[in-house]
Order: sequence, then structure tokens, then C-alpha cells
Amino acid sequence: MLAGLRIDSGGEAADGAMSGSVLEHVWHASTIRFLGDGLPGGDVVTAKATLRDWSEWFPFWAKRGEAYEALARDALAKGRRQSAGELFWHACLCWHYAQFLWFHDPANRDGGQRRKVALYREAAPLFAIPAERFDLPLDGCTIPGYLRVPPMYPGRVPVAIILGGLESTKEESYLMENRCLARGMATCTFDGPGQGEMYFQAKMRPDFHRFTSAVIDWLEKRPEVDAGRIGILGRSLGGFYAVHSAAHEPRIKVCVAWGVLYDLSYYETMSDPSRLGFAYVAGFNDHVPAGPVLKGILNLDGQAERVRCPVYALHGAKDDLIPPSQVDKLRNALAGNPDVTFDIPEDGDHCCHNLYHVVRPRMTDWLTERLGART
Amino acid sequence: MLAGLRIDSGGEAADGAMSGSVLEHVWHASTIRFLGDGLPGGDVVTAKATLRDWSEWFPFWAKRGEAYEALARDALAKGRRQSAGELFWHACLCWHYAQFLWFHDPANRDGGQRRKVALYREAAPLFAIPAERFDLPLDGCTIPGYLRVPPMYPGRVPVAIILGGLESTKEESYLMENRCLARGMATCTFDGPGQGEMYFQAKMRPDFHRFTSAVIDWLEKRPEVDAGRIGILGRSLGGFYAVHSAAHEPRIKVCVAWGVLYDLSYYETMSDPSRLGFAYVAGFNDHVPAGPVLKGILNLDGQAERVRCPVYALHGAKDDLIPPSQVDKLRNALAGNPDVTFDIPEDGDHCCHNLYHVVRPRMTDWLTERLGART
Repeated sequence: MLAGLRIDSGGEAADGAMSGSVLEHVWHASTIRFLGDGLPGGDVVTAKATLRDWSEWFPFWAKRGEAYEALARDALAKGRRQSAGELFWHACLCWHYAQFLWFHDPANRDGGQRRKVALYREAAPLFAIPAERFDLPLDGCTIPGYLRVPPMYPGRVPVAIILGGLESTKEESYLMENRCLARGMATCTFDGPGQGEMYFQAKMRPDFHRFTSAVIDWLEKRPEVDAGRIGILGRSLGGFYAVHSAAHEPRIKVCVAWGVLYDLSYYETMSDPSRLGFAYVAGFNDHVPAGPVLKGILNLDGQAERVRCPVYALHGAKDDLIPPSQVDKLRNALAGNPDVTFDIPEDGDHCCHNLYHVVRPRMTDWLTERLGART
Repeated sequence: MLAGLRIDSGGEAADGAMSGSVLEHVWHASTIRFLGDGLPGGDVVTAKATLRDWSEWFPFWAKRGEAYEALARDALAKGRRQSAGELFWHACLCWHYAQFLWFHDPANRDGGQRRKVALYREAAPLFAIPAERFDLPLDGCTIPGYLRVPPMYPGRVPVAIILGGLESTKEESYLMENRCLARGMATCTFDGPGQGEMYFQAKMRPDFHRFTSAVIDWLEKRPEVDAGRIGILGRSLGGFYAVHSAAHEPRIKVCVAWGVLYDLSYYETMSDPSRLGFAYVAGFNDHVPAGPVLKGILNLDGQAERVRCPVYALHGAKDDLIPPSQVDKLRNALAGNPDVTFDIPEDGDHCCHNLYHVVRPRMTDWLTERLGART
């Protein structure tokens, strides 16, 4: 069990334990995110009304995942491909959130992660706009990802690379991809080091941008995609990776930070389970030794200044996971960039998930416009 | 004020008052429905966490409606048509639910209804698949409705007529329409007597089917639509109207009751505000004198037996608004129909709204298959 994680159902709280319970933290931080990312509303409402203890979290969502998988197979057997695809995706999301923050039980956590991956692979070809799986070699690893291309757009289309964050992965951006596809952009998602299924091959490392570049090398060979119009959009910790990738990769023409993370100067004041999540993806099971490593990797000093493409940064003024001083740092570092937009909704929470129906289309529109302008 | 409606903030409870408060009733019966029909998750979660009294209901949603309308106009000014359309639709839904069950304050109730209608008219041409408004004359009334046609399907396509219920209206089926459109069906929605904006022209009456037929007369003239493949799908009280319409209209080839309502034999045991809602749409402000009128109009005896087309009836086994005996009555009346499917999920609530992500695609698939088979 990771140090510092208090399980609701008992056990001594280690140093750095959360002040509230994990369950309270999860509902406070993520209820609306769950809805915005596509967990079924009925399940979210039921879970919130009935779960009394963090120990019930994984079993609840695992059971829902099993149920949707069975419904998906039934739909597929009847030839109902679209419905089967969405049901496999519901199953996938249930397993994703089952293992989310489930640090104390590695067997189920890793099993849930792998189950999620497998279910999305089944969903991908069934979507109304299918997702094509790719696996790309780099440094002895295999980068897993998906490409989706909008129909009805003749010629090469721009592409949005969508990055997950600390525990969000390529399987979680389906609805955001749909917004991009509806506006004529292809979408490309992948797990980088420390993310999703890549975690089993590579932990967080300082050269995430090389993984982005390997994906762009592949995109350049795709006949559907206009490699001159590549945008990147990263969420939460992915906002860091987006700016970091744009700093190193001139083929990225537009950058969106869906949530700002500039450095980890606030690491000591960060609450768990977020901090434990950072330690986890860097391969540590204790936040203390992880600290210097994480601070060394996650720092945009000397990088953000190099970003020459247009940047859109969204950050909720009421984000209680990442402090507003992080926004100030990015603003300063981008002072020499002539096309920078900061969108800081005063009532927005972390990544403005509570305003998902407003800010997600808005980011997508901006991305569409900036990439379209380069046609 | 309608008799029998207890407002949380005070006042004597009249005979037949609800045992709980209106606010409790609404959250119990409709939280997940709100999410399934497209109210923003952030707003639903916020309202549930902060509203303490029914008197706060209308102002909360009206304010959200104002906010989305402003955002929609801003998006439209920037040429972001798709986002503007969805924001107008969010604004529309907020006003719809603001006036929902707001019986005691006719000025705001009617004002909210009209505001909803106006906002949807602004949204309709902006949707990725636009909705075309129509207004058809009948009996001195004007039937208002919308037609949406899926792109990319050459030739004439089948059409699903989607009916609202007691307080659900043509503006509330946008997401359900999208499911139909994604499966290659056109959609047609309209308000019949007592519903939505038609309420201001005509209260509930026994010949709803004539309004359906007038709409079908119009559909027959549309070049996009295959008038030989018309299905009807009605929700809650709309489930009654769907079967009723199919009984009288041979051009309806497939019928879905999204929730079964056979008659009002349970009227005396019905709880408010549902019963008050029935009285309201029939033009009464007291449920006692409304009873005989409603029972006379809402009775499928002698009608359901006449339905010869395939019927799919969905009803939640845990529906606590409409009792299961209603399903038995419909089943008996349809005994001579060779193609009848009853789908009664054991954990489904009213219209299975708590399972919206499962049952809505399933109904749509069935409708698609039955209409497709007639190609």
C-alpha cells in the first residue's frame, strides 16, 4: 500500500494522509467530470447515493463494467454494432474508474487497467466513426494509440492529438474526440510514459515529447491527415505535456493546455491522493523520494519560452488541485508569444470539468479555427 | 394555485397533497432523466447540492438559461454555429425544466414555456444536423414541429415520429433524435393537444391521432422521407399517444411505447404533482373535476386491439409513477398482434430513465430494424 493513503474502512493514517476520506475527495473533485467523460448518469447517481466506504468503489464499478460488457456482446450478436460499440465503451469507462486511485490493491488496479484497454479495443472498430488502433516502436517500448478520421471531409484533414493526464488515458477522450470529429478534425490519442497501458512499459520520464514526435512521424505517413495542420490538446497533467511537446516539436502548429500545470513547486502542499498519483506514475510508492524526481521532470522553465505556435490555456479560477500561481508562471513564460489566449472561468474547477458542456466546445472551436486558418 | 400542491416553503396542504415536498419528488423521480435528456451535469449536481426549497427551482434554472443564451449569442457572433446551437439548446432545456411542474405561478410557467420554444427555434438551424420547423393547420390550430434528416443516406429514409408526454415536449428529444439520425432515420417531433406550445391553443382531447395524421399528411409530401416506413415512438404519456395513433392510422408501420400508459384506472391513487400535471394539460386546476374527463380520454380499451403493426413496449419494473397492472392491460389487448415485444427491465424506473444509456439505444435499434426490414 502506498504510504499516505488512508482507506476509509480503517488502518492508521500515515504521514501526509488526506484530511478527508478518499471517497469524499473523489466525489468532491470528480462527480461532474465523471458525467462529462461519459460514465452513465444513472450509475454516478446510484454510486453517490449508496457507496458508504472507499472499499466499495472498485467492486461497484467492476460489476457495472461486467454488466455493460455482457450487454455489448448481446448487442453485437444481434448485429447492433453502434450500440455494441458504445456499450463496450461504457464497460471500458467503468473499469477505468474502478481502478482509478486504487493504489492499495495492485492486482485489481493493474487488472482493471488492462481490462479497460481490452474493452476499448473491442469498442474501437464499432463506433459510428471507428477508431483505428496503432502500436509504434520507440526505445524498446510500443506506443499504443488510436486514430479517428471524420467522414464527409474530402482531402486531408487537420488532426488534433489529445493527451491524457495523471490518470486520464486515451480511452477517456471519446466524447472530446467526437467534438473534434464533428468539426472536421481527425483525432489521435496515445498513452505516453506513465500513462494507461504504457505504465507497464515506461514510467514518467523527461522526454515525453519524443513519444509525441514518434506519433507525428506516423501521422505524416497517413493519407487522410494534413501533417501541416497538427494541433495538440492535453488535459490536466496533459496540459504540461502539450506545452512541453510543442516546445520541442515544430510540427505542432497549435497547442491547447486544458488545465495549466507549469511545475511542481507546490508539491509539498499538494493533497493526496493527487500526490500519490504523481508518485505512482513515476514508479514510486512513497511521495517523499518521488518528490525530487518529479520536480526535475515536471518543469516548463526553459521550455515554455520556446513555444512559437498559438497557445490556448484553460484553467478554472476555483481549481483546488492546481494553484493559480501556475497560470501566472505560464503567462510569464509565454510573454514573447504573440498568439496566446488565457481562458480562466471564474467559477471553473479543475480543468473546468464542472463547465464541461461550455469549455470543451469552446476549446475545440478555437483549435478548429487556428488549424483551419492554416489551410 | 392548483389544489393539492404543497409548496415546500409553507402554506396549508390541501387534500391529496404529496407526502413529501415537490423538491424531494423531483429529485427522486427525475435526477437521472435530467442527465439523460441533456441538462448539463454541472448544473444538476449544483442544483441538487444547493437548492433547499422548491421556491428556488425556477429562479435557478432561469438564471442558467439566461447564462447559456448569452454564451450562445457570443458563440454565434464568432461564427461558431455548432456550439451556438448546442448552447441555445442548453438554454432551452433550462427554461423547459424551470417551468416544469411550476403550476402555482402561471405567469412564469407560461413565460418559461414560451422562452423554451423561442430558444429552440434559434438552436434548430444551427445543429450539425439542422431541425426544420413546420407549422401545420388543423381545426383552427397550428401544429408546431420539427423535421431532421440524416445526411449521407441517398434516397428516401424512414422516419421516426417522436412524441413527448405529460410535460416532455418536442424540444426535449434532441438527444434521442440524434440516436435515430445516427442510424439512418429521419426524425419528426411535434406538440399535440395539451403539450408544450400547443397547450396555449388546445388542451388534451380524445382525437390526438388526428394531429398525428395531419403530420403524416405533411411527411408524405417530403422528398427526403419514405412515407411507407413511418414509425412512432412516444414517451410516458406519449406511450399512450403512440399506441392510440397507431390504432387509428394505418400509415404508421412500427410503434414504440417508451413507457406504458393504458388507462387512468389508478388516478385516485396517483401522487401529485403527476396528477396535477394531468389535470393541468386537460385545462383544469383541480384534480377532482378533471378525473372523469381524463379517464374518458385516456383509455386504450377498444383501441390497442386495433394496432396491427409491430409494437415494442418498454416499462421499468420499478416504475413508481405508473403501476405494472398497466403493462398487463396492454399485453392482454395486444394478444392478437403477432409482433409484440415487452421489455421490462427489473431495475428500471419510470420510462427506465435511470437506464437511459442502455434502453434508448435498444429501442432505437429495434425501430431501425423493423423499419429497415420494410425497405
